[in-house]
Amino acid sequence: MSTVENRQFKLIARPKGMVKRTDFEFTTAPAGEPGPGEVLVKVLYLSLDPAMRGWMNQGKSYIAPVGLGEVMRAGGVGRVIASNDPGLAVGDFAVAMTGVQDYAVVKAKDAVKVDPRLAPLPRYLGALGMPGLTAYFGLLDIGQPQEGETVVVSAAAGAVGAVVGQIARIKGCRVVGIAGGPEKCLYLTGELGFDAAIDYKNEDVRAGLSQHCPKGIDVYFDNVGGEILDIALSLLARRARVIVCGAISQYNNLESLQGPRFYLSLLVNRARMEGFVVFDYQARYGEGMQALAGWTMQGRLKAREHIVKGLETFPETLLMLFRGENSGKLVIQVAEE
Amino acid sequence: MSTVENRQFKLIARPKGMVKRTDFEFTTAPAGEPGPGEVLVKVLYLSLDPAMRGWMNQGKSYIAPVGLGEVMRAGGVGRVIASNDPGLAVGDFAVAMTGVQDYAVVKAKDAVKVDPRLAPLPRYLGALGMPGLTAYFGLLDIGQPQEGETVVVSAAAGAVGAVVGQIARIKGCRVVGIAGGPEKCLYLTGELGFDAAIDYKNEDVRAGLSQHCPKGIDVYFDNVGGEILDIALSLLARRARVIVCGAISQYNNLESLQGPRFYLSLLVNRARMEGFVVFDYQARYGEGMQALAGWTMQGRLKAREHIVKGLETFPETLLMLFRGENSGKLVIQVAEE
Repeated sequence: MSTVENRQFKLIARPKGMVKRTDFEFTTAPAGEPGPGEVLVKVLYLSLDPAMRGWMNQGKSYIAPVGLGEVMRAGGVGRVIASNDPGLAVGDFAVAMTGVQDYAVVKAKDAVKVDPRLAPLPRYLGALGMPGLTAYFGLLDIGQPQEGETVVVSAAAGAVGAVVGQIARIKGCRVVGIAGGPEKCLYLTGELGFDAAIDYKNEDVRAGLSQHCPKGIDVYFDNVGGEILDIALSLLARRARVIVCGAISQYNNLESLQGPRFYLSLLVNRARMEGFVVFDYQARYGEGMQALAGWTMQGRLKAREHIVKGLETFPETLLMLFRGENSGKLVIQVAEE
Repeated sequence: MSTVENRQFKLIARPKGMVKRTDFEFTTAPAGEPGPGEVLVKVLYLSLDPAMRGWMNQGKSYIAPVGLGEVMRAGGVGRVIASNDPGLAVGDFAVAMTGVQDYAVVKAKDAVKVDPRLAPLPRYLGALGMPGLTAYFGLLDIGQPQEGETVVVSAAAGAVGAVVGQIARIKGCRVVGIAGGPEKCLYLTGELGFDAAIDYKNEDVRAGLSQHCPKGIDVYFDNVGGEILDIALSLLARRARVIVCGAISQYNNLESLQGPRFYLSLLVNRARMEGFVVFDYQARYGEGMQALAGWTMQGRLKAREHIVKGLETFPETLLMLFRGENSGKLVIQVAEE
């Protein structure tokens, strides 16, 4: 295998503000060979996530930063082409942290076998993958939505947000999504069954939330931070729960991060703002996957993927996330299935 | 009774920034007469609390604002001098929302009889009153400190903070207080048994917290907001709890309120920030009072009051709170016992 050429994006500089191509070295190396308990995966699709921006920063976080000179961290789904572990056979498909490259050697125990007959492969990076699990545990465990409550989610057409809204609907909540552009908003209300959608690029978010949440917001699932978090905080209902899942509006902030100016709404409304990291729920991934897959089979959980072709596009494709140019889960197709 | 002259501070303007004497009218009116179920109280001590600043603002909060032209709201303790209710007799002492005046007509059911032989009367406005209950329910119900955890409290020499720290000690926690000036800090460690105190006026708060909380902060009880909240958030331990009790540094802020810039620490550390209002615990005041009184009797809960004489000093005495000039519970003595 060592003669197969493996293209890789290595992080070589800590980005300042938006990621640039020059923060990476696009290079090649021989594909590795799997050691005991390992498999060699040919990457087919790579997951692009807002969290990747944080992984590039130095400093303490919920996961160690990507080291300079290392292959950029990423989740991927691919085909096993060599195996040194009885758990995965050549020809199997698996999801793993593959990194931004054509081929990855991974431990079989850290890879999850998936079935391409049950769902298109990229979905295992989205609604049936970490974003789906993030939505599932964040909304249900931290948010604890009750039937009849009003749930608001930002970045609602994104990989996490779309699942949050649909689970909230399944649980009998009134669901309002915030997304950028009329097309995304139509997708939320027309296809995903959201009760209302607010186009933050063209509408007054405060007016929209006031209109669509006449009794206040019981659960706010935040993926964006910044101004929209401020507005949501100012419209909380009594004993509201704010789930801090991400803050995509702030990840490229060169100045000091903007804190939520209306945080005293937590006091006035006896409300709670809580963060979580999906990795903590590893022992319950099975439960989450079963629920997500079940709803998908029943047609109650829909999803779409935004597929960009070509590993070489990685830095520019990643930027689409921060500009809100993707609709649905953003993935790079690295190779034909 | 109607011929007794009753001095009153009425709110006549919504303060901008710091409270000014001209925001009030200092006037007189005849003392009222108690109707059915009411008593007339001669006010002896008035409670001065940071929350009073919020009550002067227009806008939605956990309690309606004081209306313009109304007597300024305040808690007080006094002697019943006329009674129209069997629950309170002339000569009894009682705590009630009396307002900033010499005499108040209050409903007997809204007044709590207190015993001056068990504790000095002003203590019923502090450690054995609403500040004590605020500390008790906020720390124990929202913070849920566990033995061996590290608890940090700001405004630690204040009426709420001093009780928070002592209860945390009683519960077996390591306790670090933040207060202004060497004298207050010495009081915390020397008299109240805090493990450490940080003088925010003369020390580097981040360095002090890093030193005294080597395993991070498990519970942060916040009375101040602003920079100190930012620093505490940046030093949270995993699964930390941040109790939003107040934000005295921000109450007179003329610009938009400063939000906690490090709120994403909630995500990284799977932590929770939660607000509460002590009034919600009314059904459990008895439990709280019993615990606070018990610890006081055992000598495990100490307190001191900062007494300023003269109702006429009200606007200037209130400002002492925001300048940190009081040490212990700030009260105005309105009349001799």
